[in-house]
Amino acid sequence: MKVALIGITGYGGMVLYQMLKTHPGIDQVDLYARHLAGPTPLNQLVPNLFDDQPVYPYDSQKILANDGAVFFATPAGVTKTAARPYLTAHFPVIDLSGDYRLKNGATYEKWYHQSPAATADLKVAHYGLTDFCDATDENLIANPGCYATATLLGLAPLIIDQLIDLDTIVVDAKSGTSGAGKKPTSSTHFTQVNENAQLYNVNHHKHIPEIVQQLQAWDPAVDAIQFSTTLLPITRGILATIYAKPKPGVNKDQVVAAFKQTYATDPFVRYTGENLPTIKQVVGTNYCDLGVLFNERANTIMVASVIDNLIKGAGGQAIQNFNQRFNFAPTAGLPTAPLLP
Amino acid sequence: MKVALIGITGYGGMVLYQMLKTHPGIDQVDLYARHLAGPTPLNQLVPNLFDDQPVYPYDSQKILANDGAVFFATPAGVTKTAARPYLTAHFPVIDLSGDYRLKNGATYEKWYHQSPAATADLKVAHYGLTDFCDATDENLIANPGCYATATLLGLAPLIIDQLIDLDTIVVDAKSGTSGAGKKPTSSTHFTQVNENAQLYNVNHHKHIPEIVQQLQAWDPAVDAIQFSTTLLPITRGILATIYAKPKPGVNKDQVVAAFKQTYATDPFVRYTGENLPTIKQVVGTNYCDLGVLFNERANTIMVASVIDNLIKGAGGQAIQNFNQRFNFAPTAGLPTAPLLP
Amino acid sequence: MKVALIGITGYGGMVLYQMLKTHPGIDQVDLYARHLAGPTPLNQLVPNLFDDQPVYPYDSQKILANDGAVFFATPAGVTKTAARPYLTAHFPVIDLSGDYRLKNGATYEKWYHQSPAATADLKVAHYGLTDFCDATDENLIANPGCYATATLLGLAPLIIDQLIDLDTIVVDAKSGTSGAGKKPTSSTHFTQVNENAQLYNVNHHKHIPEIVQQLQAWDPAVDAIQFSTTLLPITRGILATIYAKPKPGVNKDQVVAAFKQTYATDPFVRYTGENLPTIKQVVGTNYCDLGVLFNERANTIMVASVIDNLIKGAGGQAIQNFNQRFNFAPTAGLPTAPLLP
Amino acid sequence: MKVALIGITGYGGMVLYQMLKTHPGIDQVDLYARHLAGPTPLNQLVPNLFDDQPVYPYDSQKILANDGAVFFATPAGVTKTAARPYLTAHFPVIDLSGDYRLKNGATYEKWYHQSPAATADLKVAHYGLTDFCDATDENLIANPGCYATATLLGLAPLIIDQLIDLDTIVVDAKSGTSGAGKKPTSSTHFTQVNENAQLYNVNHHKHIPEIVQQLQAWDPAVDAIQFSTTLLPITRGILATIYAKPKPGVNKDQVVAAFKQTYATDPFVRYTGENLPTIKQVVGTNYCDLGVLFNERANTIMVASVIDNLIKGAGGQAIQNFNQRFNFAPTAGLPTAPLLP
Repeated sequence: MKVALIGITGYGGMVLYQMLKTHPGIDQVDLYARHLAGPTPLNQLVPNLFDDQPVYPYDSQKILANDGAVFFATPAGVTKTAARPYLTAHFPVIDLSGDYRLKNGATYEKWYHQSPAATADLKVAHYGLTDFCDATDENLIANPGCYATATLLGLAPLIIDQLIDLDTIVVDAKSGTSGAGKKPTSSTHFTQVNENAQLYNVNHHKHIPEIVQQLQAWDPAVDAIQFSTTLLPITRGILATIYAKPKPGVNKDQVVAAFKQTYATDPFVRYTGENLPTIKQVVGTNYCDLGVLFNERANTIMVASVIDNLIKGAGGQAIQNFNQRFNFAPTAGLPTAPLLP
Repeated sequence: MKVALIGITGYGGMVLYQMLKTHPGIDQVDLYARHLAGPTPLNQLVPNLFDDQPVYPYDSQKILANDGAVFFATPAGVTKTAARPYLTAHFPVIDLSGDYRLKNGATYEKWYHQSPAATADLKVAHYGLTDFCDATDENLIANPGCYATATLLGLAPLIIDQLIDLDTIVVDAKSGTSGAGKKPTSSTHFTQVNENAQLYNVNHHKHIPEIVQQLQAWDPAVDAIQFSTTLLPITRGILATIYAKPKPGVNKDQVVAAFKQTYATDPFVRYTGENLPTIKQVVGTNYCDLGVLFNERANTIMVASVIDNLIKGAGGQAIQNFNQRFNFAPTAGLPTAPLLP
Repeated sequence: MKVALIGITGYGGMVLYQMLKTHPGIDQVDLYARHLAGPTPLNQLVPNLFDDQPVYPYDSQKILANDGAVFFATPAGVTKTAARPYLTAHFPVIDLSGDYRLKNGATYEKWYHQSPAATADLKVAHYGLTDFCDATDENLIANPGCYATATLLGLAPLIIDQLIDLDTIVVDAKSGTSGAGKKPTSSTHFTQVNENAQLYNVNHHKHIPEIVQQLQAWDPAVDAIQFSTTLLPITRGILATIYAKPKPGVNKDQVVAAFKQTYATDPFVRYTGENLPTIKQVVGTNYCDLGVLFNERANTIMVASVIDNLIKGAGGQAIQNFNQRFNFAPTAGLPTAPLLP
Repeated sequence: MKVALIGITGYGGMVLYQMLKTHPGIDQVDLYARHLAGPTPLNQLVPNLFDDQPVYPYDSQKILANDGAVFFATPAGVTKTAARPYLTAHFPVIDLSGDYRLKNGATYEKWYHQSPAATADLKVAHYGLTDFCDATDENLIANPGCYATATLLGLAPLIIDQLIDLDTIVVDAKSGTSGAGKKPTSSTHFTQVNENAQLYNVNHHKHIPEIVQQLQAWDPAVDAIQFSTTLLPITRGILATIYAKPKPGVNKDQVVAAFKQTYATDPFVRYTGENLPTIKQVVGTNYCDLGVLFNERANTIMVASVIDNLIKGAGGQAIQNFNQRFNFAPTAGLPTAPLLP
């Protein structure tokens, strides 16, 4: 099987490409980019890959003719129009951007500050949170955001099993700089990031509406959450520390049972009990590790959720969606060995 | 005036010594250490100071005879006995350890896993949170912990003005490694800290009881708080991100007014409004910067509190206590220029 | 084929184990450790691997009976005695320590400050610098040190082709902390390493004698080199910056040709010309990248050599030796995708 | 005395301003910037300084009327024209840029890729390497570059005392990112710098010609040097590791004596013998620390020279020049306490 990838020059695209190339069900990865004058060796665009495969100017007709699926690792605003020919052709699209994550176009407009995709397309889009949503029959798969993935996997057992007071959710999420992308900015300048921790976009991060939307899919009573984001002086990884009050009468055993049962057969979510996970243990892998403390003194549940933002939080989950869609083994092509030490 | 310092080899002691040496009211800093066979040049103990001043084997009688005050920058468990001769002599002691912070000996025993100081001494000890407590007439001053300082200054306006539901307090505090001290351990090994973020001592950090004790001094209705601590790959600085629900009817203006009024004349606490502070802006200074967001959607107040853990969170506040005790200007000897860039 | 590995708890062992597990020619990796009372799940020794495979107390008889080769990722001083039963049995040993690298026992004693292996064994040991030495018929393979690998691959074309004045070699090598091992020390304490660069072991590093020995194998006229080592605040990777004077009459074209020809068919050494390589481009891979500048003004050749110290500088090269010994493809089981970004 | 400063928004300017404000001989620092429409509070330009002093649009007439000296912390190319009115008025200028460092305009043009200052002005300019050159009677003081300072102080005793073969000099210099300035670029993007070490501008760094010029002032026989620069993942500090061959017959004692004598009375250069200095021990101070090894085996002298690039390598040395020019104590206003730990 051949697949196409648009967006190889971004961090998400680079890492996705590395995984696609080793996927046992994929023979060839065709690379396209939107702003090329002609075919260009990948070496020139991403020298560190030492790969002279050609990258072609983006051409949907070629992709429709030659490939079996297309991955978009592009910024928000590209696929909302670029996806059209594929939708018409019932050709599978896996979109790593935010364009098809939100069902409500007005919400997209509010958070992304641009016009949304067509309403009919948003309606058929599938939110690909792979541990809970099955992409088998889907052709427009919206891959979740990195913060959303870490947060939703941490909250799912609590929400689905109705164990917490919904208006007490606080998410204190921390991320490395690779999540902020490749473009140099003053807030990602080494001298500014190093020896620092910077709160940013608090309550304004674009991943908030997709988190709330999915929580509401699990429990319509969810209204809003407190969501804080802090930039750490590391390259990869997210630690989302999640707090909520248990509902009256809910005890620790119920919480533990919920986590154990929810993820009992999940190949990529590991419940680590009271051994709180660190970012380092998942960097390089598709795992989400979840540790949970039940603080009886302060009547508070704390969940620590860690992922590699560029794997489970981006390309890895995209491959999980691909595996679901094409009926490959759930773990096909996905890395499980952490970067040690 | 001459002062004595015990504990120059620890990070807190080094930084305190640097400040004491430039304090306009101090002519001489006499150095003592507990485990020396004889006078030893400071150079041998802390080479980077390039200072050949002698460090003497600890001798309380010499200190009582020669100095006007004594600073202890020693680990927990030292001053609970070492302070005795000074107390008898009504000689001022400023203790940077936790030995005299807690009024209740049993609480100390529970959190510090060792026997407490004498009950009578705990009773007369003064908790030196300088922005709220005056050390003018005190001879046994317990300098607050670093996490406690950042947290208490962030919560004070909310508690004192009774603006929040007391059972909703969540503190997600992050710290650099200098707070963990000079002794090499597996959790502070470079290879383990770097490219990582590690939750540790969650709900078990020794600074929790002094935070609760002081909150209760402001409002006896406080019971318990959720307190999480994360080790960041930086050397200096604390960011405490604090969350709480406003009481019914409390609005943003009231919160803003509380912060403004509480710290209107405070020389070292700066309220930065919705410009959330970063660790970098206070490293090298005695400032505590506080930013506040009122999230109406999720009905949550967030306070971001940053300090340099070794200055405002240790030696700097110790000098503030010293200034109060000896009637020096509140800012005497205290650094205000951040380490830029 | 089954192989045995001793030393899984060290950084080198961890990374080697990850590679051995995915090697296409290896069915099973049997783990042994020297200081265990009984079989212990790997989880308990290296939690981040999330692997419950048993680690057995070291037992050479079991290894001889069950496995086809043994890897030692142990500190210096272990294999010099532990290798004996395997040598007797003509059973392949791949030793990642320094015990069999030096032909001269007295040299070992001088640099390692301990007694050497038996002279007869040193004589039969094979120095496994895979890009130049073939391990096909060897049963005692001494895997080179990390600094030695980076330095030798950078110097080889210059020495072999006799392009430089041998008494002008200066190596300014920099390494991340993983090379210093897992044991916490004051020089690898995060607070000491961070925001710092520390020269250490200058002209005293244990890898110096094996570098000189191999250089002398290429050109007996080599006598001594200047070899400096600096600890950088990074986890993985080595950058060896190598300087030498060209012999009279040697020009840039000759130098370029030497590098191109030497590594023309080498699967893991990439000559990058005047594009000087960075550490980041090889971390996670078995590559050694070499960039070269010919400074005509100062009549100096500079070679920049980068490797991942735990792969090409340890376990990766060990697998290259294994592949040679057992006639697997040269690239079997070896990672080529760098950790991006 | 009042002084003027242009360039407060750059890293060098910020740090210089902090020092000028505490200088005992300076009553007021007037701030000017080149691209302002009107007076602007410093807060808006450098928020972390929390300083509402006005910054005025640059106006040389106001400076000439109100101040006693002017500091330029501007990029190359500004002072070569801006200095004119001050030169005419015999008004002291301390220039932290490279515009007046090189005596030969053609050399400036070659290395800076722009036209030079007027030849007559270059002729009167004073190269302010404070440890060797006296600025007492100078009105156009060219403050040396950071790399130049670290390198020249390390080489001076060897060159002046004619201890080395001049054609064997190799400088392997490493720097933190603050030296690369405030402007975000792909090579100073956190994700690129972190976990990396990047050679850059090798043999092309702008500080090379001023190094050679000064070396030639000491010994006209100097021709060219090998000069390599590596960007480290730290914010502040330079480590220049310098290598050279001793002249025939030169021994270790002579080298040691040269360093001791050269810097015997220097307040800011510390010879540390074989205790090689680390960057950390000078960050926050105006010191240059020099350690020296004499490798008899390889017949090579190695000097390790460390400075804080923004203090001794920029603003600190500028203040030393100011102190010389106005006859203040050599140490006035200069920081000596390192950032510990």
